[in-house]
Amino acid sequence: MTSPMFEKIALVGIGLIGSSLARVIRREGLAGHVAISTRSEATLKRAETLGLGDSYTTDAREAVRDADLVIVSVPVGSSGTVAEEIAPALKKGAILTDVGSTKASVIAQMQPHVPEGVHFIPGHPLAGTEKSGPDAGFAELFANRWCIFTPLPGTDPDALERLSEFWRRCGANIDTMDPQHHDMTLAIVSHLPHIIAYNIVGTADDLESVTKTEVIKYSASGFRDFTRLAASDPTMWRDVCLHNKDAILEMLARFSEDLAFLQRAIRWGDGDKLFDLFTRTRAVRRSIIEAGQDIDAPDFGRQAVEHPAKG
Amino acid sequence: MTSPMFEKIALVGIGLIGSSLARVIRREGLAGHVAISTRSEATLKRAETLGLGDSYTTDAREAVRDADLVIVSVPVGSSGTVAEEIAPALKKGAILTDVGSTKASVIAQMQPHVPEGVHFIPGHPLAGTEKSGPDAGFAELFANRWCIFTPLPGTDPDALERLSEFWRRCGANIDTMDPQHHDMTLAIVSHLPHIIAYNIVGTADDLESVTKTEVIKYSASGFRDFTRLAASDPTMWRDVCLHNKDAILEMLARFSEDLAFLQRAIRWGDGDKLFDLFTRTRAVRRSIIEAGQDIDAPDFGRQAVEHPAKG
Repeated sequence: MTSPMFEKIALVGIGLIGSSLARVIRREGLAGHVAISTRSEATLKRAETLGLGDSYTTDAREAVRDADLVIVSVPVGSSGTVAEEIAPALKKGAILTDVGSTKASVIAQMQPHVPEGVHFIPGHPLAGTEKSGPDAGFAELFANRWCIFTPLPGTDPDALERLSEFWRRCGANIDTMDPQHHDMTLAIVSHLPHIIAYNIVGTADDLESVTKTEVIKYSASGFRDFTRLAASDPTMWRDVCLHNKDAILEMLARFSEDLAFLQRAIRWGDGDKLFDLFTRTRAVRRSIIEAGQDIDAPDFGRQAVEHPAKG
Repeated sequence: MTSPMFEKIALVGIGLIGSSLARVIRREGLAGHVAISTRSEATLKRAETLGLGDSYTTDAREAVRDADLVIVSVPVGSSGTVAEEIAPALKKGAILTDVGSTKASVIAQMQPHVPEGVHFIPGHPLAGTEKSGPDAGFAELFANRWCIFTPLPGTDPDALERLSEFWRRCGANIDTMDPQHHDMTLAIVSHLPHIIAYNIVGTADDLESVTKTEVIKYSASGFRDFTRLAASDPTMWRDVCLHNKDAILEMLARFSEDLAFLQRAIRWGDGDKLFDLFTRTRAVRRSIIEAGQDIDAPDFGRQAVEHPAKG
């Protein structure tokens, strides 16, 4: 048997991402020992029941002691607190990384606490579902998804390569970019879509002219597609909004400007403007399918839904 | 062998909806003869190659002659022209229906042309995919979906029941409501989501700070979910926007107002407001799954995507 990539991996936070990591680490034999830590006693107990690791503690400092790789998977607003807490126990030569959806803010929060000799490499696997908690994870979550690193100046290339290899073994493809570009990119591909989805679901929920029952009943005609994103973890997304504020406000401004243009075309019956936009957007969909980032089954293959008894 | 529900059904328009109807009519044996008509020679030829009906013509008037049921499945902006064209050939006692996504406008366009003795019953099956054309249809499209009728005052109850039974045999559940309520309901559950999806994809496509390649590559983190709707038929959606203008503008106004509120909360760091909304929307998702209008597989079961060779 080949020896594992890391003697000991500490997972701080055991939600969707942390618990998916635990499962893929086990499956691929990437660690000799997996230490799991989370603040909540109930969540920790659940992780233990699921058998996700080798040791369990609510004390993050205890979990990271002697770990060769520490992965912080908590809402981005908690990154600073966690870094401060674990810093004194981090082993010299250890790799410290995170999985947060914003990078400039996480770096600002964590870096000041990182001790000399610890390799801090901020990371972000672009993977997730609308579910959360230790039960929601699965080993295949990262397969064919991108993991983006935003290494700081002077990052040790060996440590970066080691962490890259770890994520590749988890199934991910690796990219690197600077934190500002990451935050701008994620604002458009992830943060704005989630905010818009939350918003439209809220708007529908508030209507008096159309009942909630009707919204639910007829949701397959479009609305449904937004509700998956709008079911994502509220704490995580509150933190993302607060910690990537500038890029998100920039994207929201552009989106609203474009929507005003579209609204005006609708009001004044300018069919050509509408047709032009509606044609252009079709091409984007095709590119996404060609890039293997979605499947082409019509309606997401939802025909597979079993038909409940007719009313 | 039991006799079919209708001796002759005429399908005017053979796109996604028309060709799905052709397929389910065949499967369920609902017609003795299916006459297919479409303006485009190329589309008609394709329908013939696919063997969707029993007779084919670009002359809608010829197709509807002697038909007991005529189903108009064209972009809503063409409803008036089609009604005017076919009116002289409609058989006394025939049922005339449509499948348009807006109802008040379709009624205003078609009703003036409907001859005495023809049962005009406006209808709208809430079913579709992002694909269009005769190849895109499939017999299961209407299974467990809603078909909404907006019957006019004085509609013959027997004709309505006969048409309802037809749609039930196609797999759909039946609802009736008045045209104005239909248009308001669809504005929120279908039209606004499509417009928002088109808009966000347009915004992303226009960015200079993030490349198109990056948007495509990282789309699985949220953006992707919008691109399916934004790949829908441009002609159909241009017409929907132009023909349900008032209800759509009302919903757009509410959406924008709510978005401004959310944007302000982000700007001023009001995490509680964000958390409240993000929590409330989660419940809507649960209701949709309980109502059988979506599947609960995380990430839409997209883990089933085959992994292309790693780059």
